Amino acid sequence: MNESDLRVLRTRAAIKSAFEQMVCELDYDQLTVSELASRAHINRKTFYLHYQSIDELMDDVVIEPTVAEFTGKDVSYASIDDIAGIVRFYMTMATKQSKLHERIMCEPSYRSVYERISRRIMDYRREHNKGALHLDPLAENIVYAFFESNSPTLYRQWVADGKKMPLEDFIELSIGLVTHGMAYAVPGYQQQLDHQSTDSSASNQ
Amino acid sequence: MNESDLRVLRTRAAIKSAFEQMVCELDYDQLTVSELASRAHINRKTFYLHYQSIDELMDDVVIEPTVAEFTGKDVSYASIDDIAGIVRFYMTMATKQSKLHERIMCEPSYRSVYERISRRIMDYRREHNKGALHLDPLAENIVYAFFESNSPTLYRQWVADGKKMPLEDFIELSIGLVTHGMAYAVPGYQQQLDHQSTDSSASNQ
Repeated sequence: MNESDLRVLRTRAAIKSAFEQMVCELDYDQLTVSELASRAHINRKTFYLHYQSIDELMDDVVIEPTVAEFTGKDVSYASIDDIAGIVRFYMTMATKQSKLHERIMCEPSYRSVYERISRRIMDYRREHNKGALHLDPLAENIVYAFFESNSPTLYRQWVADGKKMPLEDFIELSIGLVTHGMAYAVPGYQQQLDHQSTDSSASNQ
Repeated sequence: MNESDLRVLRTRAAIKSAFEQMVCELDYDQLTVSELASRAHINRKTFYLHYQSIDELMDDVVIEPTVAEFTGKDVSYASIDDIAGIVRFYMTMATKQSKLHERIMCEPSYRSVYERISRRIMDYRREHNKGALHLDPLAENIVYAFFESNSPTLYRQWVADGKKMPLEDFIELSIGLVTHGMAYAVPGYQQQLDHQSTDSSASNQ
């Protein structure tokens, strides 16, 4: 690798690092090329040699890698245990994420970025689980919207309350709200829930 | 009223009317003072005699009147019927709203405006229904977040699907998802739900 290639790599690393710092400190509408250039010690012109816009940089650094990580993992919507497992997985991942990702999930000014990530992952999952709920397509869309939206909403409330509720209690409460709601609509889920509670009362004896 | 007062009224009406038109046609970040001045046939300077910014105009035209309308109506969270009634009221209001309000509820670029309205109404309702769910405050916050977020989420999905599901079916499904989720967490709600279904199976005979 020659000096010019190395310079490109260094510049890109400086841009990304300044960008990550800015997301952690600033609102979405404060992410300007001028501010980024100043923090990365480059000219605005240099920035535009690498990216067309702040949004393209957001795609490259945040959106694409996150979508790839989640769509690389197959999930099933076949049983109520799968649903509970996905809620648990989401909450566990959320508690371990970087400050940058937590800002994008929780800060109102980044909501449109979060929604773009979420839309992409959910469209992929819906496509791969079409018909899994045995509902007509319109009802399936409503139930999927219910399922998909609650984990981020509940996580944001938990964060807003200073993460004071013990994590396991919070996860159990979230799973209960989501699975019991879905059990109303999805054929078979209610029986699976009833079966679970029989199991657990049997094991408690 | 003298000619100067009338002129002020005419200018404000022209600003509001141009603004409403712009919200119906443009994304949130396209709402500029230049565009508004051009549509209202005024100078930018004249705009700033009346409002400090587009956001102040949004407050005056959209946010304050909407918050006042909803906080003027007392709602109770005491029983599962109250919860079902609030979901039904929300969906019925949503189907009757103006194009401007539907844009603010459904268009992703207006999400931050919607969230500001929603936050204000929900803070007011939480304050007036503190303790109504007989949960500890942290669990109550999570359950309220669940309750508050689902109606707009489900309504947006229904609109995205071209409002093809019959309205009554959609309202029933939404009420079922929300009330059965909450019945998992709120003491007494499950018994009220069971009682309802006994009633309705009795009346079906």
